[in-house]
Amino acid sequence: MSADFELPPGDRLPIGGTPLQCKLAAAAIDLFHAQGVPGTTVRQITAACDLTPGALYNHFTSKDYLLYVLVRDIHHSVDEQMASAIASAGPEPAEQLTAAARFLVSHTAEHKKRSRVANRDFTLLVGSRREEIRAIRRRIRDRFTEILIAGAEQGAFDIAGGNDRPGAALASGAITNMCVHISQWTLEHYPLGIPDLTERYAAMALRIAGAAKGNEQIARAGKS
Amino acid sequence: MSADFELPPGDRLPIGGTPLQCKLAAAAIDLFHAQGVPGTTVRQITAACDLTPGALYNHFTSKDYLLYVLVRDIHHSVDEQMASAIASAGPEPAEQLTAAARFLVSHTAEHKKRSRVANRDFTLLVGSRREEIRAIRRRIRDRFTEILIAGAEQGAFDIAGGNDRPGAALASGAITNMCVHISQWTLEHYPLGIPDLTERYAAMALRIAGAAKGNEQIARAGKS
Repeated sequence: MSADFELPPGDRLPIGGTPLQCKLAAAAIDLFHAQGVPGTTVRQITAACDLTPGALYNHFTSKDYLLYVLVRDIHHSVDEQMASAIASAGPEPAEQLTAAARFLVSHTAEHKKRSRVANRDFTLLVGSRREEIRAIRRRIRDRFTEILIAGAEQGAFDIAGGNDRPGAALASGAITNMCVHISQWTLEHYPLGIPDLTERYAAMALRIAGAAKGNEQIARAGKS
Repeated sequence: MSADFELPPGDRLPIGGTPLQCKLAAAAIDLFHAQGVPGTTVRQITAACDLTPGALYNHFTSKDYLLYVLVRDIHHSVDEQMASAIASAGPEPAEQLTAAARFLVSHTAEHKKRSRVANRDFTLLVGSRREEIRAIRRRIRDRFTEILIAGAEQGAFDIAGGNDRPGAALASGAITNMCVHISQWTLEHYPLGIPDLTERYAAMALRIAGAAKGNEQIARAGKS
């Protein structure tokens, strides 16, 4: 079982949860990832935490509510950490784009299970819960769009597909999707390691943005 | 309900199915797309075809087997149509890459429901069925990889992330994933229409490949 509940506060799920809620959340992510949400019972989640089945309901009103809280908090955590990575990158769009792509790929690679659950199983949510998650997903894509538009306006980028807003929006969707939908095989067996994977994805994002070649080489400087 | 069972033979599912099997398959794709596989009952699938529940079992041994047949045949159909698009594009890697990316985006946009079911719900399959689908998915990615490597060897491409096999493999995974995971919002509301969307995605694929600028302009020639 993963020890997600022992992670630093920014990575702990659910955000602001008690230690026992974090332990249940970590067990749920493991099980949802391995056997799907519909194939997972409350009994399995509580058994993984050495609790009786009824104990879940002291912490979450239902399995569906637990899924919603997890998916929501994974998205919030990604959105906040990505904003922080962009803010730390300074004012240059190419540096901001590199930082954002690196963060997203690192997160996908380091948190394989939660990333898969968030990006696959958010489609199981319905109604206002589903709309809430879609709004956070749009916000994450919009962070890329704003960087791309700023870079195009400054002449630092020449976006593949065009420097207009539709071009920037499509490019940001493509960059987001390529960074979060990395195949399980690649994440587990990529022969050159995750830092190399991260830098190559950052280089692809810069290519889509049409950053000057120099920026791509900066992004790849850490690579052998 | 979609009328997938009225499609031309290459698009008909399951491949080689009887008219009634095609009708059940079309109803199942609509329902799986709208409410998920676990949320869909055999009774709902047969009711959508004006059949009694038991009628499904004359055609498919179970709901899970129907899902497997559908996911398998969608993947086979995409793989074969993509191979044909590449073969029709002539010998130039940039033309082949453009044709392959255009085909994949067009397929995602024109067959939104089957694309979502294939790319989301294949993870519900287990054991040898899951392995069979993963092998077809690898074959689709490998088609991109071979084009990228051929282009790099000929000096037509300078692949983002590097001209080695790991660089080509990652780029092909990124191109595949960005072309099949286009957000539902984009597919339904993209203001400039699907042909424009397709051309912009082809331009992004060429950028990742590092094709000469001229190729990208050829790919975008149809765009206003």
